Amino acid sequence: MSQALQKNGHLKMVRHPHMLAKAQELIPELYHHDVLPQAMISAQPDAQQIHGWRADVVNSAEDFFQYDFAQGEHVIIDFGKHCIGYLEFTCEAVGSPPDAPAHLQFIFGETLAEVVEPFSEYNGWLSSSWLQQQDCYLDELPGHTRLSRRYCCRYLRINVLALSRKFQLRFTSLKLDTVTSASLATLPACETVDLQLKRIDEVAVNTLKNCMHDVFEDGPKRDRRLWLGDLRLQALVNDVTVQNYSLVKRCLYLFAAMTREDGMVSANIFVKPQVIADDTFLFDYALFFVDVLQEYVAVTDDSETLAQLWPLAWRQIELAMARVAENGIVRDSSDWWSFIDWHEDLNKQAASQGVLIYCLNKALMLARTYDSSKVTWLEAQITTLKSAALRELWDPQSGFFVSGESRQISCASQVWLVLADVGTPESQRQLLAHLLTHPPEIQMNTPYMMHHYVAALLQVNEREQATHEIKRYWGAMVEHGADTFWELFDPLRPDFSPYGSKLINSYCHAWSCTPSWFIRKYLL
Amino acid sequence: MSQALQKNGHLKMVRHPHMLAKAQELIPELYHHDVLPQAMISAQPDAQQIHGWRADVVNSAEDFFQYDFAQGEHVIIDFGKHCIGYLEFTCEAVGSPPDAPAHLQFIFGETLAEVVEPFSEYNGWLSSSWLQQQDCYLDELPGHTRLSRRYCCRYLRINVLALSRKFQLRFTSLKLDTVTSASLATLPACETVDLQLKRIDEVAVNTLKNCMHDVFEDGPKRDRRLWLGDLRLQALVNDVTVQNYSLVKRCLYLFAAMTREDGMVSANIFVKPQVIADDTFLFDYALFFVDVLQEYVAVTDDSETLAQLWPLAWRQIELAMARVAENGIVRDSSDWWSFIDWHEDLNKQAASQGVLIYCLNKALMLARTYDSSKVTWLEAQITTLKSAALRELWDPQSGFFVSGESRQISCASQVWLVLADVGTPESQRQLLAHLLTHPPEIQMNTPYMMHHYVAALLQVNEREQATHEIKRYWGAMVEHGADTFWELFDPLRPDFSPYGSKLINSYCHAWSCTPSWFIRKYLL
Repeated sequence: MSQALQKNGHLKMVRHPHMLAKAQELIPELYHHDVLPQAMISAQPDAQQIHGWRADVVNSAEDFFQYDFAQGEHVIIDFGKHCIGYLEFTCEAVGSPPDAPAHLQFIFGETLAEVVEPFSEYNGWLSSSWLQQQDCYLDELPGHTRLSRRYCCRYLRINVLALSRKFQLRFTSLKLDTVTSASLATLPACETVDLQLKRIDEVAVNTLKNCMHDVFEDGPKRDRRLWLGDLRLQALVNDVTVQNYSLVKRCLYLFAAMTREDGMVSANIFVKPQVIADDTFLFDYALFFVDVLQEYVAVTDDSETLAQLWPLAWRQIELAMARVAENGIVRDSSDWWSFIDWHEDLNKQAASQGVLIYCLNKALMLARTYDSSKVTWLEAQITTLKSAALRELWDPQSGFFVSGESRQISCASQVWLVLADVGTPESQRQLLAHLLTHPPEIQMNTPYMMHHYVAALLQVNEREQATHEIKRYWGAMVEHGADTFWELFDPLRPDFSPYGSKLINSYCHAWSCTPSWFIRKYLL
Repeated sequence: MSQALQKNGHLKMVRHPHMLAKAQELIPELYHHDVLPQAMISAQPDAQQIHGWRADVVNSAEDFFQYDFAQGEHVIIDFGKHCIGYLEFTCEAVGSPPDAPAHLQFIFGETLAEVVEPFSEYNGWLSSSWLQQQDCYLDELPGHTRLSRRYCCRYLRINVLALSRKFQLRFTSLKLDTVTSASLATLPACETVDLQLKRIDEVAVNTLKNCMHDVFEDGPKRDRRLWLGDLRLQALVNDVTVQNYSLVKRCLYLFAAMTREDGMVSANIFVKPQVIADDTFLFDYALFFVDVLQEYVAVTDDSETLAQLWPLAWRQIELAMARVAENGIVRDSSDWWSFIDWHEDLNKQAASQGVLIYCLNKALMLARTYDSSKVTWLEAQITTLKSAALRELWDPQSGFFVSGESRQISCASQVWLVLADVGTPESQRQLLAHLLTHPPEIQMNTPYMMHHYVAALLQVNEREQATHEIKRYWGAMVEHGADTFWELFDPLRPDFSPYGSKLINSYCHAWSCTPSWFIRKYLL
C-alpha cells in the first residue's frame, strides 16, 4: 500500500491504552547481519534492461578499499543483493593532513536507476523526501561514521563532492548493518520440484524478510509503515515461512490501539515516535481486520487475543454494513473510499461488495466457533448480499459483473466476487476463464491485485493457470533481476508509477511476497 | 591564517609524547550558553551594504515558533549576534500524521550573503566543504534534533525542501548551544573613555571569545585550527582580557608535540581525532614560537614551561639563521616560505628579515634571564642583521626599504623593519610618516598586517596616528555591522577574497582581534 489521498485531520480519534500496552510488549528482537560491498560497478544505458540501465563490474570490492578518491570522483558499490540497514564506514586522508572537511554524498538505490538518474529531476507527487540520499561532512579523519537513518538498497553511490587540494580520501571499511525481525534459521523447506517456482519462493521470502522490522512494513524504502492491506498478505506468507506469529499479534493490537471515534480501524499505523493511527480510512482495509484476525486465530488458536479483538472486528462489520444500500449493494462514491488496486480509472463498487461478503464469511467462521449468537444474522446478510450482487451487478450480455453507475467491467470486480463465493463453483470457474478470453480494458496494475486473481484461480481449482500466472508475472520480475518483488510491475509499461516516477516506486514490497504462500500452501 | 599551499607529505615528522601529554592535560573546559532566534528576516539587495544585502525584520521570533511551514517555504533567522555552537531544534507535524520524512536544509551564515547567494555558484580554490550547510531528514515527528557539527553563524536559513501534502511543519523549539573556552565573568573593564574605541574593544573581545575552543582557533568557520601566527596575536589579547593562560600554554605544547625531523615547528596543528602537525612550514610562523613563549613567560613567570620549551624555541632561531646569506640577509625564494600578509605580489624578503631580528630580540630577552650563555651570540647576530638590513635593503632614493631581486617597496617591509628596531627611533618615526605621505603600491591586505602597522606606530609613540588607524580600519568594520572582526577587510574592495569568493572568507578571525590589546595595553 502507499500514501493516502485522504486528509481527515478533523476526525476525533480514540486511544485504547490497554491494546497499546499489549502491542508494545511484543516489540520484536531485530537480527543483525553485516553485508559488505561485492563490487565496484559502472551503470551503462541499456534499452534491454527493464529500468534502462545495466551494471558492469569495473573493479573488485578489494580495489574499492585501496582506491584514493580525489574531489569530484564517484563510485557505485554493488552489495550483491537487496539490503535493509545502517551504513557504516571509516575514511582516512591520503597525502597531507586533511585541512578541510570531506564533503560526501551518499545515494542509495534499490535499483540502478536511482543512483544514476538525478533526484533533482524527480517530479512525482509523493514527497521527494523518500528519495534516499545523505550529505555528510567529515570534520575528523581518520574517522568512523554510522549514518543514523535506515536505508534500503542494493546499490550505493558515493559522490566525493569536496576535499581539498592537499589530500585524497580512502575508505578503510564500509558495510551495511542489515536488520530484520525475520529469522531464517528455522525456515521450512520449500518442497516444490519446479526450479523456477523454487527461485520465485526464495525471492518472495526475501521480500517478506526485508519488510519485517518493528512491524510488518509495506515497503522498507517507502512508506516503511504498517498498512492493514499489506499486513493481511504478509501474515499469510509468515504462516508458511518464518512463522513470527507474535509480530502478527503485535500488529493486530497496534490497529486496535487507536481507532476512529466510531470504532473504525485506520488503514495504517505510525509507530514512531509514538503509535498514531493515520487519518486514512478505507472500506476494504478496515474489513480486512476481520480476515487477519481469523487467519491468525486459525493458525495459533490464540483464543485470548480473539476474545480481546473480536468486538473490534465485529465493529468493522457493522460499519461496513451501514454502507449497504436498500438494494443490497455497497454505495459507491468518487473519493478514495476503498483501495482494491492502484488504478486511476477503476470503479471500486463491485469489488468492494466482494470484499464485504468475503469478510462476512470470515466473520462467520469466527462466530461459529466463538460467538454463535452472530451466526444466523451473518448467514442472512451473506445470502442477501450475494443475491444482490447477482441481481444488481451481473450483466448477462457481457458475461461479467459490472461496477458503478457507468457499469464498468474490470478484472478486480470479477476476481473479488469470485473470492466472495458469489455464484456456483462452476460459474466462478467460467467467469475467470471468460476473463482470460475477453480481457476487459480495466486490467490489474499491481502484484496486490494479481495476488487476488491467483487466489481466485486456486479457489476454483485452476492450479495450472494459477502456476502459469505466478511464473508469467512474478517469474518475469525474477528474470529482470529482482531479488525482492516490486510494488508495481506491468511487463508492458516498465516505467509505470502511480506516483509520477519509477524512482520513488518501492522495489521490495510486502504485498508482492505472496507467491511463497501459493507455492507452499497449495503445493504447486 | 588560512589554508597552506605547501604539500610536503614526504617530510619526516617526529612525535614528542611528553609534550603531547602536557598539552592534553590542559584541554579546557567549554562554557555553554543558549542563544535563541531574535527575528525572522528577509534579505534585500542593497548596494549601500558592504556585502550587498540588507536584513529587514519581517516577523518576531515568537512568530517563527507559531509558523506552519509548507513544502518549498524557507525562513532566515537572525540570532542577533555572531555565534559558535550546536543547532538544536524540535519539530512537529501540523495537519495529518506525517506520512513522509521531512527534508530540511540548513544554511549557516556569518554574513547575510552566505544564506542568500547560492553555494552552488561558489568557485573559489578553497574547499567548498567549508560552506556551512546540512541536509536533514526527519523520520519521526515530533522529534528533537541536535546537529552533530559545530557551526558559526549569525544567520540561519532553513529551506523546507520536502514534506508531503498531508502535513506542514512547525518548529516548537530552536536554539544554538554556543560554546567557548573564554570566560567573560572576570573580564577586566576597558578603561577608555572613547565610545568608538569602547565599541571596537567589545567587538574584538567577542572575536577572541568566539575563536577560543579546545585551542585558539584562527577562525571558527574556517580553518578552525591552531595557527602559530594567529596564536601569537590571540595570546596578546588574552593577556589583557580573558586571561586563559593555560590555553596559551596548551597551544605552545601542542606545537612542541610534533615537529619536523630537524626540529622546525609547523605553521599549524590539527587536534582531532589526534594531534598532527601540518606539513606546512613558514619562516615567520616558526620564529613566532619564540615570541609567543617570551610573552607567555613574561606574564606568567612559568619557568617550568620555559625550561621545557626553550630548546625548541632556540632550535627555531638556529633554523632561521641557517637561511641567512653571507651578506647578512635572509635568502628569498619564490614559494610560500614566509607568510607576512595575504598578498599575491608581496615580496617577503625584507619583512622576513624584520621578523627574524624581532624574534632574535625576543630570544635575547629570554636568554638574559634564563640562558646567559646565548646572550653574546644573540647580541652579535642582531647587530649583524640590522647592519645588513641598512646596508643591503635601504634605498636612500625612495626613502624606503626594498625587498627581493626586483627591489620591491611595500608597506610590510617598512613595518617589519621598524618592529625589528632597525635604525634610530627617529628614523623609524620618519619612515612610518613617509609611508603615509608616499603610499607604496604594495599595500596591506589584512587586519593581520594592519596589526603590525599599528604596533609599529605605537613603538615610535605615534599614539594619535595609531588610534586613528584603529578607528579608520576596525571602526569601519563596526560601522558595516560587524560584531566580530573579519579575516579580510579592504574598504575599497569589499568583495576581496584571496580564495576566490567572499562566501568563504572568515568573518570572525583571530588575527583581527588585536584592537583590544592596543586599547587596553597602551591605554588609548
